[in-house]
Amino acid sequence: MLQRSDIASAPAELDALYHSLEARAMAPLWTAPDVGGQEPRSKAAPHRWRWQEIRPLALQAAALVGTKQAERRVLRLMNPGISGRSGTTNTLFSGIQIVMPGEVARAHRHSPSALRLVIEGEGGYTNVNGEPLPMLPGDLVLTPNWTWHDHTNTTAKPMIWLDGLDLPLVNLLEAAFFEEYSAERQELSEAQGVSLALHGGGGLQPAWERPSSRHSPLLHYPWPQTKASLDRLAGATAGSPFDGVILEYVNPATGGPCMPTMGCFVQLLRPGERTRAHRHTTGTVYHAIQGRGVSEVDGQELDWADKDVFCVPGWTAHHHRNLSNTEPAYLFSFTDAPVLRSLDLFREEPAGD
Amino acid sequence: MLQRSDIASAPAELDALYHSLEARAMAPLWTAPDVGGQEPRSKAAPHRWRWQEIRPLALQAAALVGTKQAERRVLRLMNPGISGRSGTTNTLFSGIQIVMPGEVARAHRHSPSALRLVIEGEGGYTNVNGEPLPMLPGDLVLTPNWTWHDHTNTTAKPMIWLDGLDLPLVNLLEAAFFEEYSAERQELSEAQGVSLALHGGGGLQPAWERPSSRHSPLLHYPWPQTKASLDRLAGATAGSPFDGVILEYVNPATGGPCMPTMGCFVQLLRPGERTRAHRHTTGTVYHAIQGRGVSEVDGQELDWADKDVFCVPGWTAHHHRNLSNTEPAYLFSFTDAPVLRSLDLFREEPAGD
Amino acid sequence: MLQRSDIASAPAELDALYHSLEARAMAPLWTAPDVGGQEPRSKAAPHRWRWQEIRPLALQAAALVGTKQAERRVLRLMNPGISGRSGTTNTLFSGIQIVMPGEVARAHRHSPSALRLVIEGEGGYTNVNGEPLPMLPGDLVLTPNWTWHDHTNTTAKPMIWLDGLDLPLVNLLEAAFFEEYSAERQELSEAQGVSLALHGGGGLQPAWERPSSRHSPLLHYPWPQTKASLDRLAGATAGSPFDGVILEYVNPATGGPCMPTMGCFVQLLRPGERTRAHRHTTGTVYHAIQGRGVSEVDGQELDWADKDVFCVPGWTAHHHRNLSNTEPAYLFSFTDAPVLRSLDLFREEPAGD
Amino acid sequence: MLQRSDIASAPAELDALYHSLEARAMAPLWTAPDVGGQEPRSKAAPHRWRWQEIRPLALQAAALVGTKQAERRVLRLMNPGISGRSGTTNTLFSGIQIVMPGEVARAHRHSPSALRLVIEGEGGYTNVNGEPLPMLPGDLVLTPNWTWHDHTNTTAKPMIWLDGLDLPLVNLLEAAFFEEYSAERQELSEAQGVSLALHGGGGLQPAWERPSSRHSPLLHYPWPQTKASLDRLAGATAGSPFDGVILEYVNPATGGPCMPTMGCFVQLLRPGERTRAHRHTTGTVYHAIQGRGVSEVDGQELDWADKDVFCVPGWTAHHHRNLSNTEPAYLFSFTDAPVLRSLDLFREEPAGD
Repeated sequence: MLQRSDIASAPAELDALYHSLEARAMAPLWTAPDVGGQEPRSKAAPHRWRWQEIRPLALQAAALVGTKQAERRVLRLMNPGISGRSGTTNTLFSGIQIVMPGEVARAHRHSPSALRLVIEGEGGYTNVNGEPLPMLPGDLVLTPNWTWHDHTNTTAKPMIWLDGLDLPLVNLLEAAFFEEYSAERQELSEAQGVSLALHGGGGLQPAWERPSSRHSPLLHYPWPQTKASLDRLAGATAGSPFDGVILEYVNPATGGPCMPTMGCFVQLLRPGERTRAHRHTTGTVYHAIQGRGVSEVDGQELDWADKDVFCVPGWTAHHHRNLSNTEPAYLFSFTDAPVLRSLDLFREEPAGD
Repeated sequence: MLQRSDIASAPAELDALYHSLEARAMAPLWTAPDVGGQEPRSKAAPHRWRWQEIRPLALQAAALVGTKQAERRVLRLMNPGISGRSGTTNTLFSGIQIVMPGEVARAHRHSPSALRLVIEGEGGYTNVNGEPLPMLPGDLVLTPNWTWHDHTNTTAKPMIWLDGLDLPLVNLLEAAFFEEYSAERQELSEAQGVSLALHGGGGLQPAWERPSSRHSPLLHYPWPQTKASLDRLAGATAGSPFDGVILEYVNPATGGPCMPTMGCFVQLLRPGERTRAHRHTTGTVYHAIQGRGVSEVDGQELDWADKDVFCVPGWTAHHHRNLSNTEPAYLFSFTDAPVLRSLDLFREEPAGD
Repeated sequence: MLQRSDIASAPAELDALYHSLEARAMAPLWTAPDVGGQEPRSKAAPHRWRWQEIRPLALQAAALVGTKQAERRVLRLMNPGISGRSGTTNTLFSGIQIVMPGEVARAHRHSPSALRLVIEGEGGYTNVNGEPLPMLPGDLVLTPNWTWHDHTNTTAKPMIWLDGLDLPLVNLLEAAFFEEYSAERQELSEAQGVSLALHGGGGLQPAWERPSSRHSPLLHYPWPQTKASLDRLAGATAGSPFDGVILEYVNPATGGPCMPTMGCFVQLLRPGERTRAHRHTTGTVYHAIQGRGVSEVDGQELDWADKDVFCVPGWTAHHHRNLSNTEPAYLFSFTDAPVLRSLDLFREEPAGD
Repeated sequence: MLQRSDIASAPAELDALYHSLEARAMAPLWTAPDVGGQEPRSKAAPHRWRWQEIRPLALQAAALVGTKQAERRVLRLMNPGISGRSGTTNTLFSGIQIVMPGEVARAHRHSPSALRLVIEGEGGYTNVNGEPLPMLPGDLVLTPNWTWHDHTNTTAKPMIWLDGLDLPLVNLLEAAFFEEYSAERQELSEAQGVSLALHGGGGLQPAWERPSSRHSPLLHYPWPQTKASLDRLAGATAGSPFDGVILEYVNPATGGPCMPTMGCFVQLLRPGERTRAHRHTTGTVYHAIQGRGVSEVDGQELDWADKDVFCVPGWTAHHHRNLSNTEPAYLFSFTDAPVLRSLDLFREEPAGD
């Protein structure tokens, strides 16, 4: 940004020009604070939320606020560097949702897309466009852009999960639509497990119908299969130098990201493994499914253990370390990588360890 | 947004909960102001900038500020509804750039992409990655993401053009990179007209090389051909009910948008033509190349004449009318449509006239 | 085709013209036998090969011919309607390959692509580009275009499988390349099961590498998972009216066909199920993995039982019937559908039952 | 191919086996003549047809055979190496069509796709799906897969053009459909020049409609623009070492080939230019629009001059030489490259000059 004093000529005339411009909804570019800068600096800060702090607050919220009052009983994870709006990273929202026994989070749909990574519970369902999707710990469930969805706890224990949404992005793009369903819950039109049976078989897809949506036709990725894939690969392949054995939850109809705005990943860090540092223009929200470790982000150490959540802002150097020498650690994460790739704004580079 | 008073139970305990959350970088979702809303309402306002006001201010700026002081001598068109940052619409920046005889706007590159629609001048060049692209009134010149570019006025008259950038978008996505070139101007490595000869022939493309970039290999769309296409089509086809005869400047290697983040369009309104109203989630910046008319945007009338600039925010109902009964009107425009389409957030609907 | 007598004028001059043309490597179009015809009539005939006849002949061949003499000990399934070249359908080759205990079918590669559907055996391997792929009954193993491959029987029992190749197509296109490996067998560079672990997890793909090939990175589709998917779906979905519950073996990196020239399918016909008739421009080779039924092809009945092979030529009306009222039937099949779709020559229509 | 004498064991038993196989529609692979071979050898031969021989024969045919007798009055160019079917190369058909003053080649459509490169005439039209496309010398006109088309000579001079079809390919794939129109000529529903105005503007495409076909929406590529592009590029770029300045006629909606089965090209050889030799798996038919030269194909010289036609079979080494030291030469050509690329069977390599 140019300072006014840098302009050699005629400060009085310049002042007059600036006032004339302002009066006509114009402004000089050479004084603009939002132009220039060699590389991006995210407003978001690295941060970690501890499960041992989250959980009691979620239960307390459940005791004080009903699903009638709060259509979704969610604790937002507010990035300390972002003010005036929701945001766990610049473009991603993450929260902790709790549904108590017998409760229903009522049906609606919206253009922001959502994912659910189940943390605690003994069952219960997310109904998406008429199909009940089971929710057991470690399962990933998607409720993409404009799909009807409601959540029901049919068990005797609380259900708690991590919500991930592209809400900040969709708000930044001024493209958020929202609609209530005509009833509290959808009528179910599909048997449980149909989309998994149709699209979840490795390398097999129904020959008689092609998905017409941009998002994955597979909406439920059960944890046991996911964990088994990671465990098999841990002994068979080196994986990524920056992330260990890391898998993307893909749209099986395209091989691409499961939703056009968010990519979902799961990675295994072998006992004692320490990855190399890199940085990329995508921001990331992590959830430790199991294990304990430490992630260093632009020099700041975030230690994490079972069920903690932490975030890594875009274009910050980061690496991960599994602090256990005997047990693997499992990290779930989601990013805005599909957005940056679609727009040709994705960059990545190693960041000297 | 839920008001605290809507919560039946225990306001004191709720207060305590909210404080506990805040202390741990959390917040309830049910009090969030940025969630919900049936449909988007853009912060941007409809606005029109008159050429007769812009031009003298541009000349005045040229008299007061040199290219040494201002790397780019640009008057930003500031949407009255957007504060605290540059933005002609929510995601798009537009400005008026002036380069005086003998001046050079020095070489640099950046991850935000840019377009130039020439308004005034008798020649001059934008050099892009070593190739000089001529700039005559009505020409569209692209300087996409991370291409080196400098502008030179080799004539005896001022050159003035409309700048269009995705800068607000790239800033919102925290993905802006910038780099100065090692000299004021690039050395030229290509003859003038090479990319036009290679890629601008209708339906012909070089067989010995395939473009490797995501953006168009064609960087210069001369006005005479563009106008000739519009004039031919005006008598031969109805065009769009919402936009008349409207053409997109495409990437000839893909048939898609000329850049992944911005779509460029040119349309002809026949004498007296009045289009039907519609709305879509993309915001648009218009420039009247020639003609006079009025565009109604959510009930607000923006009248425009030769060389004026105006903007239509996303999800506002709008239609256009050519006020001349004898002459066609020509409107250039650019939008963020490629972004919203890539992310499955594009929506469009007729809006009862 | 026009007969010479149809031409009113001057037969003698016409004769002279025809001779002049012939002398100059030309010919009239109006006498051409290969132009016209309202719709295609395949030269191939419907045919069924019985396993009880195939198997003893395969064993006899194994007794008489060694792998030194026959690089591949394969019995070609010769369509009775096709003469002068190999072809089970017009574009597809199918054969029965037998590898005896201790034998190796030595390493080579070729531009025709191949698939193997295992019929009999207790193990053994196909090594593809250095990775050993297990071969158990019902497994599908791919050796796509230009991949090195050798087959080894490490068990005490004969291994017998169905070969499927696009050899007739590649020969018709005059694009067949072939190369011997420098040794009898490849050195193994990958652990067994790596490609399955990397790419066979439902909806999970490695995030650190993107396949660079046009064919599937998954080369082994084990039968137990395939059968489980079919069995689950049989109770949950109607499937195709023409094919029952039919799955395509896809390329998990694209969701498209596993190879650009051949599509592979597996279908379950429920007890007593009779599908509706249709026809399409693709020819098909079927193998009954398990079950017994009858397929009617342009009025000709082909009955089949465990391990039989049969073919349905392109553009013939056909439907299938499971003759058991208690057991499902499982049919594997492969077609040239990807070819016809790529070239915009795929057509399909119901064919009145 | 293995000779029977190569099999050490028991010739009598082997004979018995072979007879048993034959009786059951089977055959040994190890005696197959159509398997193996290190690289393809096209059945087609290099050949050149002289315009000075073609033209009188075409006129003679026009005198002897009417359009009532011959739906299309075409002289097929028969490759001397291909017998029993039409074929100028293995997959491509080329012919010379003549339409006399006042004649109509009546309306029909077929799944084989066709192109027309006009050689002689002063006008006339090909009507495609209701739109009249002008035909002047050097123009390329497309009648893709299943488009209705008829040709009319409204002038006082004969019209003669080069036909190019994928007929051999479509026949090899057994996918040829054909249908007569209900009248001799289509009713015209579009003004002349509409598709050119819509899709032929360099880098401009209609924004209100997206083509739904796989083939190019642009069906007419006028020679003056094509020649102008070549001439401009001849001085500005080196072009291909193997082909000089060579342009592909593309589908402007995709940047890909104008039809899924045939690619069309036009090249300029500068005065005295001699290209380097290469070979590729595609076969090519050439037509000398203007100029004289010699093309060497696997050691055989084909000299050519204005309006001659010649063919280069797949996988033959070839290069071109312009025999004039003062005038450029212009060659039109069409190939099956899109087919081989779609199926991952395209190969190309330099072939030592």
